[in-house]
Amino acid sequence: MSHQDILRVSTHGQGLYEFTRDVESWVKEQQVTAGVCHVFIQHTSCSLTIQENADPSARTDLENWLNRLVPENDPLYTHTMEGPDDMPAHIKAILTNVSLSIPIIDGRLALGTWQGIYLWEHRHQGQQRRIILHISE
Amino acid sequence: MSHQDILRVSTHGQGLYEFTRDVESWVKEQQVTAGVCHVFIQHTSCSLTIQENADPSARTDLENWLNRLVPENDPLYTHTMEGPDDMPAHIKAILTNVSLSIPIIDGRLALGTWQGIYLWEHRHQGQQRRIILHISE
Amino acid sequence: MSHQDILRVSTHGQGLYEFTRDVESWVKEQQVTAGVCHVFIQHTSCSLTIQENADPSARTDLENWLNRLVPENDPLYTHTMEGPDDMPAHIKAILTNVSLSIPIIDGRLALGTWQGIYLWEHRHQGQQRRIILHISE
Repeated sequence: MSHQDILRVSTHGQGLYEFTRDVESWVKEQQVTAGVCHVFIQHTSCSLTIQENADPSARTDLENWLNRLVPENDPLYTHTMEGPDDMPAHIKAILTNVSLSIPIIDGRLALGTWQGIYLWEHRHQGQQRRIILHISE
Repeated sequence: MSHQDILRVSTHGQGLYEFTRDVESWVKEQQVTAGVCHVFIQHTSCSLTIQENADPSARTDLENWLNRLVPENDPLYTHTMEGPDDMPAHIKAILTNVSLSIPIIDGRLALGTWQGIYLWEHRHQGQQRRIILHISE
Repeated sequence: MSHQDILRVSTHGQGLYEFTRDVESWVKEQQVTAGVCHVFIQHTSCSLTIQENADPSARTDLENWLNRLVPENDPLYTHTMEGPDDMPAHIKAILTNVSLSIPIIDGRLALGTWQGIYLWEHRHQGQQRRIILHISE
């Protein structure tokens, strides 16, 4: 039997959207004792990251720091047809992750105490994003 | 039966070299219905990334942006014996990817509509690069 | 039988700590001919990377470069309660890796000639870090 599913996350502007619980509950349902849960995002203007889920100020700083490193309207950009936030979005995506592989121990996702799984939306406009989940034993 | 292979990619200077079709056709041949295709590059001065494969201007901007962030001849570098492009190559490699894990759904690589798989060559001189492919079910 | 283990690495200040041999010897013991070894770190203020293990000057430059890109005491930071090195640590972690997937060929970890696996400690104080290893065939 294959352990595979599609997760849809709606975004409404730039930011870090946590979906740890969706992955955790899906993993529990699969009843796989030991394995790896692969998380893959099918887009190039948003990305994945695992970061601290305790203090929201850490996430605010992550976003502000990355926005400063990769500003809009940089004269370097030639790919500007899809809006001022598009080229920065691609750059932010390559600096973070398109795939994550998280171990499963005793049937549960083995995240560290402070780790949360986030979709990082890099576009201003609301989007419907697709994430693929797959467990390998 | 093991689903594993080595892919060789010849590069001729810095840039993004797409090899999506090589992976797609190899995956089809393996006849695995559901799984994950792991892509791993055995080098430290080039790397892997998944990015937009529609408009070439997005790739040009990615390269120019990363070259500006990690310039050659930075007085910070002490590792200079292998040429001015070597230390920037290592830094660019750690900011991008050495491994990617892409799901397989219904026997096909489940990339998003605009996603392409790229080898990012960070050296000026032509190189023969080795990429390992492995499918886990 | 499941191929899964926890590796503990003690750190004593910022820097790159190689643990390639621990992974290599564990993989050999598992006697898996072909597969992928997943390496996952359960923290958000240190990270993983694969880099050149030949010349130590390359690692010094990597660290100095990243410290300059993500300095302490940046006025942008609001998350400062856990010390001046904490927010830079989170940023450095998202720019590098939380998980790595390395192929196993003929029972051995298929790293390139110059590739070493490193824990990158981003905190000043000594820490006990947990890394999960899992092999999928």
